[in-house]
Amino acid sequence: MIRAAILGASGYVGGELLRLLARHPAIAATRLFGDSKAGQKLGQVHPHIAVPLADLTVERFDLAALDGIDLVLAALPHGESQKIAGAILEKGCKLVDLGADFRLHDPQDYAHWYGEPHQAPELLGRFVTGIPEFHRDAIRSAQAVAAAGCYPTATILALKPLVDAGLVDPASIIVDAASGVSGAGRGLKEGTSYNVVEGSFVAYGLLNHRHTAEMEQALGATILFTPHLAPMTRGILATCYATATRDMGPDEPLSVLRSAYADEPFVRVSNEPPATKWVAGSNGAVVTARYDPRTGRVVALGAIDNLGKGAAGQMIQCANLMTGLDEAAGLAAEGVFP
Amino acid sequence: MIRAAILGASGYVGGELLRLLARHPAIAATRLFGDSKAGQKLGQVHPHIAVPLADLTVERFDLAALDGIDLVLAALPHGESQKIAGAILEKGCKLVDLGADFRLHDPQDYAHWYGEPHQAPELLGRFVTGIPEFHRDAIRSAQAVAAAGCYPTATILALKPLVDAGLVDPASIIVDAASGVSGAGRGLKEGTSYNVVEGSFVAYGLLNHRHTAEMEQALGATILFTPHLAPMTRGILATCYATATRDMGPDEPLSVLRSAYADEPFVRVSNEPPATKWVAGSNGAVVTARYDPRTGRVVALGAIDNLGKGAAGQMIQCANLMTGLDEAAGLAAEGVFP
Amino acid sequence: MIRAAILGASGYVGGELLRLLARHPAIAATRLFGDSKAGQKLGQVHPHIAVPLADLTVERFDLAALDGIDLVLAALPHGESQKIAGAILEKGCKLVDLGADFRLHDPQDYAHWYGEPHQAPELLGRFVTGIPEFHRDAIRSAQAVAAAGCYPTATILALKPLVDAGLVDPASIIVDAASGVSGAGRGLKEGTSYNVVEGSFVAYGLLNHRHTAEMEQALGATILFTPHLAPMTRGILATCYATATRDMGPDEPLSVLRSAYADEPFVRVSNEPPATKWVAGSNGAVVTARYDPRTGRVVALGAIDNLGKGAAGQMIQCANLMTGLDEAAGLAAEGVFP
Amino acid sequence: MIRAAILGASGYVGGELLRLLARHPAIAATRLFGDSKAGQKLGQVHPHIAVPLADLTVERFDLAALDGIDLVLAALPHGESQKIAGAILEKGCKLVDLGADFRLHDPQDYAHWYGEPHQAPELLGRFVTGIPEFHRDAIRSAQAVAAAGCYPTATILALKPLVDAGLVDPASIIVDAASGVSGAGRGLKEGTSYNVVEGSFVAYGLLNHRHTAEMEQALGATILFTPHLAPMTRGILATCYATATRDMGPDEPLSVLRSAYADEPFVRVSNEPPATKWVAGSNGAVVTARYDPRTGRVVALGAIDNLGKGAAGQMIQCANLMTGLDEAAGLAAEGVFP
Repeated sequence: MIRAAILGASGYVGGELLRLLARHPAIAATRLFGDSKAGQKLGQVHPHIAVPLADLTVERFDLAALDGIDLVLAALPHGESQKIAGAILEKGCKLVDLGADFRLHDPQDYAHWYGEPHQAPELLGRFVTGIPEFHRDAIRSAQAVAAAGCYPTATILALKPLVDAGLVDPASIIVDAASGVSGAGRGLKEGTSYNVVEGSFVAYGLLNHRHTAEMEQALGATILFTPHLAPMTRGILATCYATATRDMGPDEPLSVLRSAYADEPFVRVSNEPPATKWVAGSNGAVVTARYDPRTGRVVALGAIDNLGKGAAGQMIQCANLMTGLDEAAGLAAEGVFP
Repeated sequence: MIRAAILGASGYVGGELLRLLARHPAIAATRLFGDSKAGQKLGQVHPHIAVPLADLTVERFDLAALDGIDLVLAALPHGESQKIAGAILEKGCKLVDLGADFRLHDPQDYAHWYGEPHQAPELLGRFVTGIPEFHRDAIRSAQAVAAAGCYPTATILALKPLVDAGLVDPASIIVDAASGVSGAGRGLKEGTSYNVVEGSFVAYGLLNHRHTAEMEQALGATILFTPHLAPMTRGILATCYATATRDMGPDEPLSVLRSAYADEPFVRVSNEPPATKWVAGSNGAVVTARYDPRTGRVVALGAIDNLGKGAAGQMIQCANLMTGLDEAAGLAAEGVFP
Repeated sequence: MIRAAILGASGYVGGELLRLLARHPAIAATRLFGDSKAGQKLGQVHPHIAVPLADLTVERFDLAALDGIDLVLAALPHGESQKIAGAILEKGCKLVDLGADFRLHDPQDYAHWYGEPHQAPELLGRFVTGIPEFHRDAIRSAQAVAAAGCYPTATILALKPLVDAGLVDPASIIVDAASGVSGAGRGLKEGTSYNVVEGSFVAYGLLNHRHTAEMEQALGATILFTPHLAPMTRGILATCYATATRDMGPDEPLSVLRSAYADEPFVRVSNEPPATKWVAGSNGAVVTARYDPRTGRVVALGAIDNLGKGAAGQMIQCANLMTGLDEAAGLAAEGVFP
Repeated sequence: MIRAAILGASGYVGGELLRLLARHPAIAATRLFGDSKAGQKLGQVHPHIAVPLADLTVERFDLAALDGIDLVLAALPHGESQKIAGAILEKGCKLVDLGADFRLHDPQDYAHWYGEPHQAPELLGRFVTGIPEFHRDAIRSAQAVAAAGCYPTATILALKPLVDAGLVDPASIIVDAASGVSGAGRGLKEGTSYNVVEGSFVAYGLLNHRHTAEMEQALGATILFTPHLAPMTRGILATCYATATRDMGPDEPLSVLRSAYADEPFVRVSNEPPATKWVAGSNGAVVTARYDPRTGRVVALGAIDNLGKGAAGQMIQCANLMTGLDEAAGLAAEGVFP
């Protein structure tokens, strides 16, 4: 078994990683770090986790505790990974980092969108972008992977083949997306309390959501991105608009997606607009697209589970590749539906 | 008391009209028509309605039953009103129609978007558009009003002052909106069953939703409109994008909205993105807007309750105006929150 | 207009009081007290409240600010009202208190269930129990009313006529109830965060919930009470079990309820089990009951909105009575459905 | 691979079976029967199922199609299995039946609760009750298993060890349970439409729910059972009350449960009341219990996913045992949380 340590084990992504690893055939979660819940049994922290994992104790992070660890899965607030990534890599561990710290190639972009200078710009070049559908070979041979964010994953899966095929103008992209509440993390906020969220739909982060930078980098585009909070726990749907570069058949964008993802184990191309629940609790993604001759625009949609393909699932998918395992080991493409 | 008849009394809009009229100081629901539930007591049809209304019987529609009726509130499937509107007006009743039948001024537009010829094009000129914020005086003196649709109301409230002020290019508009499930009506469909909807977010009606025509007419615009179904019963949020016609301060669109709605009893202008729940169960609307210098676009948002300001509330607001009552009689701007 | 002050204006009950008073014909909210949000405009504290109320400022409580106030509506954490009730009554204000402080007649009961001695036992005798259906005349002439709790209101409405008629053994009662999350208040807790609550049903307060005492007092009974948290914002359903004192027809309990509530404006007796949504957002209540010859037990059910008939609605109903207004002024029996 | 056929493949239990078998290491779904969707690709019927399963075609049931099938998993409406079970067993297939047809040992009980005579009483003796925790050895050697119902599974897991230990009086049991909406199946009904269910809690089947018989048989008890519909898709919580046979420590029932389930892979005993979401999407169950000296009663709670341990999960657990596989193969105890 590959011995894995989880950083940020007490958060929602940590909990999802543990749920997946509890049934993973070849990776075992052996050390769990989470400062805010250090000292507690995992079963107290995550009520869905059963024994034997539930009996492990969450620890305060300590580099020495990584001795014997093969793989580090980090789900930390931004700014935290860059403090410790160097030392982790030094120890020879493979690292899949879900934070924002190593996603943007240019440290100036990080400084601009996150409002603080990058602490480890010299490491940026060592991180491969963690979307296997577009970076599979690089991930296989990487020591460090920066797993993509949830909104970017849904958006990039829907749009990148269309941009690469030259069907849409990258300067014209609008991404309007809705996320489940788990995307906001486990911290308590009035805006994520049940009473405020149930039966309500709201936009947030108007014009300045940080995931914009990651989308623009991946697509070589200028993007206006509006995230929304939907009254659901899991799921992201990205509805993307772009000006077509030429007239085309209404289904031509769909054909491009079908070609792009023909052999992908986790991405389905659908004729119908996908519902997020089709992939809830899974590592699956569903995309579709069509051309509107009336307005000259392409609409492309991508649905994922923000904690699955948008976080923990994609991390495991990357880890499987990095460790030479079957890419799909321990992962499902089938959503928990209904 | 003004004596009102309700057509389509057994549907969700009918139920909301009855809830509102149960406490209305000057309009009484006296005849209830609903073919599918004809013969049943209203209390069986709408479990939320209390006596004395609950003891009324739903009837099959009959023109003679309108004798003595001052006001007809019609919430029928499209195509139905046009068969009977002429006779209703003939009888001297005032009519507020929520269907699509009399919203589009040009019968060719109706034929194009609804796939069938209009049955009463000669009546189109007698209907005033039922958005009081923009047609108040005309509504006051009208015998017939075509209340606006739910998506169009949210969209038009958010965008029309910006279009009218010349801030945005009407040919560039994208409307991305999410609706609660009650917007789909009371008929049983798998797509509106609880198990399918809970925890899921999905787009529908891609590129061809019929409300597009109504928005385009009201705004003199070309619009790409994508509706979504959100896991909530009530509420619409329209997130609207348009290319700005010039550079401006980020809050200039907000100022335009503030001026436009300064004296409106039901429209609030918010600095923050509005949540649909702020106006759930009410006739209120909340709008906001801002300019993004980075992409040269304006984002405008409008939130309403699709059954309130998007249907029954707006119908009553129009009826109040048509009958010389206080425009706000029997209506609230305050949402049922949380 | 009767001038009302609200204590606890920033909580959920405070917000519901303000929503109701915004459209109340004869009671105006003129002073708003809420220590945690003191200094903020009401519109910031409660996003559903429109102008002119939204422009009022929330104040820190000060006895002098009650000059000119006719009516105090208090929705405070337990233990708070007893510190100030004496002074409020001294000033001649009428007082409707929703806290637990003055519900239990015997200060020993308060000490036992709340774990602290009562600070103003001499005032207990001045408070009338605030369930108008059973204490209407006393409320009319009272200066001080202790509005009943949410679970007790649902339970007492369902059971009291059956106990009073001698149909059930008061020593045998089990109350199994489910509440919406707003019953837990506005404070942030992991257990009321959206992610934890959505799609989940859970019991809490096993064997020792404090509302037990209030139910037992009102019914002269011994009660085992199990509250549950249901994934909804509003609503309480109390499902009550008791051993029948004799054999009877299956509908005899229903008949007793029908007689008891024949003239009540807010209580409906239903043949079918009521759904909480029938009365959501309203002051309505629905009850039903039947006898099970197979097990010799009576099952009685009561549904209310915990913020309506279980809190703010009932407070206003009491205040209407105390001030000589129409008991139903500003209140609806019709739920916001669907 | 063990070749399995699914009867009722187009329903929700069928969909859950397919989701589980899609990742099962040793059982493959090879033939899918579902009359209402016969001829459709599975991917159309169940949008969460990915290829290769999605490419299978749903067939009309035909006995000949069972040639070469090792295992039949039947999730049919009651009354259907009894028509075909004999022939299925004749062919040598192992059969796990989830319907009610073979759960009640006495055909008179079936006739009484289901209102029709049993069509195959001679087969009743060949079916073993499908709760592995109590019938593991019999299941291992059985050709036919009648998997327990969802409410009975939650109830029996919570109560049976306490009844068996003599702690509670079996004649005194009340079961008050709440279920997610998927328990009502995939058929369209107003009562399971989104608009009606969201934000609402309601009892149903008062005094006469058919699962009562199965609970009474398993516990040797007389039971008053009240099911409720909670606004969630999955999950059952059974809150069970019984009169204690003697005074005891408050945690004695908990100790009994701990002993009973010490070695169980899917049943956890919790100090705290379990939430249904802890086991959503999984085959896990969580139980707890305590004694109330004040009322002399024991309260016991059991939480499961009605589609997991209450249906498809338990069917697979039984099938694993019947086919000599690891009992936990293809199953998780960890819920999809949050």
